[in-house]
Amino acid sequence: MPELAYVNGEIMEIGQAVVPIEDRGYQFGDAVYEFIASYNGRMFCLEEHLDRLMRSMQGLAFPPMSRDDIRKAVVDFFDRAAIPRAGLYIQISRGVSPRNHPFPDDAGAQFVMTIRPVEEKPLVMRENGADTITVEDLRWGRCDLKTVQLLGNVLAKQKAMEAGAFDAIFVSAEGVVREATSSNLAIVKQGALVTHPLTAHILPGITRIVVLDACREQGIPVEERIFKTDELFGADEAFLTGTVTEVLPVVRVDGNAIGDGKVGPVTRRLYAALRARAEA
Amino acid sequence: MPELAYVNGEIMEIGQAVVPIEDRGYQFGDAVYEFIASYNGRMFCLEEHLDRLMRSMQGLAFPPMSRDDIRKAVVDFFDRAAIPRAGLYIQISRGVSPRNHPFPDDAGAQFVMTIRPVEEKPLVMRENGADTITVEDLRWGRCDLKTVQLLGNVLAKQKAMEAGAFDAIFVSAEGVVREATSSNLAIVKQGALVTHPLTAHILPGITRIVVLDACREQGIPVEERIFKTDELFGADEAFLTGTVTEVLPVVRVDGNAIGDGKVGPVTRRLYAALRARAEA
Repeated sequence: MPELAYVNGEIMEIGQAVVPIEDRGYQFGDAVYEFIASYNGRMFCLEEHLDRLMRSMQGLAFPPMSRDDIRKAVVDFFDRAAIPRAGLYIQISRGVSPRNHPFPDDAGAQFVMTIRPVEEKPLVMRENGADTITVEDLRWGRCDLKTVQLLGNVLAKQKAMEAGAFDAIFVSAEGVVREATSSNLAIVKQGALVTHPLTAHILPGITRIVVLDACREQGIPVEERIFKTDELFGADEAFLTGTVTEVLPVVRVDGNAIGDGKVGPVTRRLYAALRARAEA
Repeated sequence: MPELAYVNGEIMEIGQAVVPIEDRGYQFGDAVYEFIASYNGRMFCLEEHLDRLMRSMQGLAFPPMSRDDIRKAVVDFFDRAAIPRAGLYIQISRGVSPRNHPFPDDAGAQFVMTIRPVEEKPLVMRENGADTITVEDLRWGRCDLKTVQLLGNVLAKQKAMEAGAFDAIFVSAEGVVREATSSNLAIVKQGALVTHPLTAHILPGITRIVVLDACREQGIPVEERIFKTDELFGADEAFLTGTVTEVLPVVRVDGNAIGDGKVGPVTRRLYAALRARAEA
């Protein structure tokens, strides 16, 4: 079960994998990415991740790439590594060209991957729930594109860690609750799930799709709408969704307990539903 | 006069220079940069660029690096290339570490440089002035730090080029005029210079410092204050300032002439003052 890297068709050890310094991903953050998890040797939601990857590239007007070619490279790479519970990272940049802001001609997209065992969230956090803080959302206005413009996420996550919390929740200047640093956020109030609608301010999460679908299946009402911090603090339950996060209960925000400060029943049901689908 | 690259102490051809794919500059945009121009074999405003580089690194809580060591590496690299009118690009990232949002321990900063002849702006643009468009400012909230979070700049510059213009001017949702994609912006009205104050929304430009100093020397009143698009469209003159841009007249914004649509006298004086200082 080796950890491996892939660079434009070549497979190697991660420590050997390099890109030119004039890769636009390096000098402009002009690159998109995906992170796919596998369960029991099968990638979960591969097609949904490819959908989003293609959408991100189109959103940045990257030169067209074949989805079938990308899928084949991903599947071959995954099979080669043979890690049953893997985290497969994909990054595609606009290419390599002498530094200049406008899109270069014929720069040749750079296609890079890594694969490693997924780092599972600690069981105690799944059982007891996570502590979080809120931070002002200073990220750029196209968070719906999964790009490496992630410094705002990095700084917020670091702030959370330094505060002894697991993650930070981005809140707009007007108090609108958006998402966490690498997960979407949902709250539960009186049995209904409430989550930020798909706008340019949040990532269209794949796990978010799965969870909303599970809600429909289980008869849990879903409200995709703007909500503010007062609703977050007054929620019965809250949880994060993401490829690695899965469905992770949030029991505390800025020192305030959410609900009774314990993991709630809707969160538990949705986590079970997600795992059931992932491991099916 | 070779074009060269520098990677952590090693000097090589630019095409040979690479960084690991898990450089945080590549995966998170977790890197800062500077661009220094030389005139007649002398770097202009080297200390001011080093000031800003140190400030950017501190702003992101990078592990401390010695300013003297950085200066020595920059000067040695510049001397080695021996390009009289050079553009020297510096990028320092937080280092290399398996992908994870929080700051890694001991990742070892990556220090990369390139040097090439500066690409001068076309003389016709200096003589006749540049055409620009306005775009909504979708960049993140820390544009005062010179980081590689530049995708918003890239998309805006590309939009300008596709519109047949030279550059795009970022305007906030409230109509506040900020700066261009790699230059600060100033307007002139009734003999006074007006430019956005130093906040988190604009880069603290080095050429901006030089130009404001030249204004003081020449008795041109300076107002560092917020102004909106109506003031821009009603200005007598407008110009961009930047290391490569120098002082570049803007004669047209969104198809509207600024002043009489010709390069104005204050712009000319300030360009001459900048060149005189740079070539002194």
